[in-house]
Amino acid sequence: MKYIENGICAPKGFKAAGIHCGIRKNRSKSDLALILADVPCTAAAVYTQNKVKGSPILITKDHLKNGIARALIVNSGNANTCNADGEEKAIAMCRLTADACGIDERDVIVASTGVIGQPLPIEPIANGMEALAASLSYDGSHEAALAIMTTDLVVKECAVEFELDGIPCRIGGIAKGSGMIHPNMATMLGFITTDVAISPHLLSLALSSVTDDTFNMVSVDGDTSTNDMVSVMASGLAGNEKITEKSASYQIFCEALFEVCRTLSMEIARDGEGATKLLICKVSSAPDLHSARAIAKSVITSSLFKAAMFGQDANWGRILCAIGYADAEFDIGKVSVTLRSAAGELPVCENGAGIPFSEDFAKVVLAEKTIEILVELFSGESAAVAYGCDLTYDYVKINGDYRT
Amino acid sequence: MKYIENGICAPKGFKAAGIHCGIRKNRSKSDLALILADVPCTAAAVYTQNKVKGSPILITKDHLKNGIARALIVNSGNANTCNADGEEKAIAMCRLTADACGIDERDVIVASTGVIGQPLPIEPIANGMEALAASLSYDGSHEAALAIMTTDLVVKECAVEFELDGIPCRIGGIAKGSGMIHPNMATMLGFITTDVAISPHLLSLALSSVTDDTFNMVSVDGDTSTNDMVSVMASGLAGNEKITEKSASYQIFCEALFEVCRTLSMEIARDGEGATKLLICKVSSAPDLHSARAIAKSVITSSLFKAAMFGQDANWGRILCAIGYADAEFDIGKVSVTLRSAAGELPVCENGAGIPFSEDFAKVVLAEKTIEILVELFSGESAAVAYGCDLTYDYVKINGDYRT
Repeated sequence: MKYIENGICAPKGFKAAGIHCGIRKNRSKSDLALILADVPCTAAAVYTQNKVKGSPILITKDHLKNGIARALIVNSGNANTCNADGEEKAIAMCRLTADACGIDERDVIVASTGVIGQPLPIEPIANGMEALAASLSYDGSHEAALAIMTTDLVVKECAVEFELDGIPCRIGGIAKGSGMIHPNMATMLGFITTDVAISPHLLSLALSSVTDDTFNMVSVDGDTSTNDMVSVMASGLAGNEKITEKSASYQIFCEALFEVCRTLSMEIARDGEGATKLLICKVSSAPDLHSARAIAKSVITSSLFKAAMFGQDANWGRILCAIGYADAEFDIGKVSVTLRSAAGELPVCENGAGIPFSEDFAKVVLAEKTIEILVELFSGESAAVAYGCDLTYDYVKINGDYRT
Repeated sequence: MKYIENGICAPKGFKAAGIHCGIRKNRSKSDLALILADVPCTAAAVYTQNKVKGSPILITKDHLKNGIARALIVNSGNANTCNADGEEKAIAMCRLTADACGIDERDVIVASTGVIGQPLPIEPIANGMEALAASLSYDGSHEAALAIMTTDLVVKECAVEFELDGIPCRIGGIAKGSGMIHPNMATMLGFITTDVAISPHLLSLALSSVTDDTFNMVSVDGDTSTNDMVSVMASGLAGNEKITEKSASYQIFCEALFEVCRTLSMEIARDGEGATKLLICKVSSAPDLHSARAIAKSVITSSLFKAAMFGQDANWGRILCAIGYADAEFDIGKVSVTLRSAAGELPVCENGAGIPFSEDFAKVVLAEKTIEILVELFSGESAAVAYGCDLTYDYVKINGDYRT
């Protein structure tokens, strides 16, 4: 497997585009993206578990009932959620897209991201659709990735190439963060493309399983969004023998999908609102997978620990505290914790109790931009990894006045 | 029922004191408090549900097995948690207290608050105990309340007087916040005294039930501490007929205990680390109590909503988002939300969708120091109230470098 360029346009058969249509006042920030496949794709998606669901989620769920999609339309600047006319507007977005692309409106995936509870103006989308469709191109991934950004500072896209039966295949993806990020089943938002031929059932299975280990292990602020969605569209144009069972090819596909989703997840965490550091908590020797995941996520979700990381303070007691309130079973008397970065390793806790360390060296370790928290439970064989970021003044600043 | 002065010393039979013994370097901040009852008290406590438990918690649990206590010793500046010699030190604190007061060491409740994972120096406590015991007085509540503060800016104490069978009775309490506050069964720390005569079983029942509606409905930062504890000691010196069943007197006692715990809980939330505003979320017409509590707590725990309140931004979509990810059952299409303060009421959402409001008036409403969030579900008869605070630059500042 190797990383390649061109994001969601790396797999065969996908064009993409992004433009400013006017949902946002700021003309320098694009706000409408389109992905169009050359052929009908096998498609699957995972959605937020928030009981308040964005209207686009409801429409996309309906459109994906048959497991087929051809295009994806997404706007930023407005979440189209908690609006009385939300579903109507989401359907209108699909219809406008279908008309511009000459496809069926039920083959369109729709998504929105931005402020909740403000009516979505449909006019800018209607007016901009022609230009958007006209600018579709086989190297438009970056433009699409730009258009879905909200408070993101960094474009998130990646693609990998791998072989199935000697045939080169590709998976590409784009995603956005960067606040209201504590995904439960999916994050806000990830769009994956692939040219692998695969049955709808296995595509859906692969996405669910990979999402649990990647997007669902990210947290920026503990707030599960109303509009979370990760979708995958498979064009089948790579030419591989279609994956229809849990074969070796299916495993290879899952590994490649994992790689793309993991990379995007890390990028979302690293670019969390106001973040200066990427935090990666790796839990090992846990009694079961649920416990491993719960502990890893608990550590990178703790406001106290996140603030300590911003301050480069090795206040490891907060890690133990977060381990302790996680929904997990283990013997706290066996737990060891090590902080690790490019500058070195700093063991801080063994057998559930503190061990002496150099505060000077701790400052050096924690001055790095990526900090790993290694938690060993010595209570079993399971492991999990979670991705988060520090809590900073800028998080408060960004969210103290987000709407203006 | 009326509010009276003198906190934990308001009930008959309780002396208290607080001194600086040297656990903290800052000599102007006291760090050791003692409560001593004139007679053996019926006693009960509730504790943190964090699997990492402070050593004092384990010792107090053991000492309260017989439902009797005579004294309470508590230090601030060090949590005595995650230390290999933690239990030994907690027992030593009880022994020193017992020796100084001439009581049995098993009749001592012990608590600690402060940094996790640093060995507790016992010498300052041993050296200071004589002076502490010598300064015990029937109006020492304030000194004790001062000595348990950590990042608290405000002393938290209150007392009420009420009648049982025509006999005046009293309940008093002190508490501390103000970070690592997301109690599960109890908060860090609340100490209650009363002169009511009541059986150990009913005292314990009253404390658990009241705690669920008060301390357990507070959150400052979502971090459940390792050292949470609320204890109550009942001297029985009021002279009321001993409460031994769920009588009318028991109900009156519970109401008075609720009032004391609610007041202390609100004070903890109002004085949350870095807080500038008290947030009170009142959920009504919920289908069941669990749903009502879950939703109320979810709203006041949301980092995004808390930051918006700091910015005085009526970003109510974040309230809906937090309602939606709460562990609760309801029809989102019926939900209404109103923001209320001393400046007026601002309805923002009806039937799950936004309604127009004046942003200028919203600024006026949100400029107040206490903001109520009224959530009506129109799905049943249950209600709950949760207490929180805004998320501010100062929270990050305080926790970016707490240990130094």
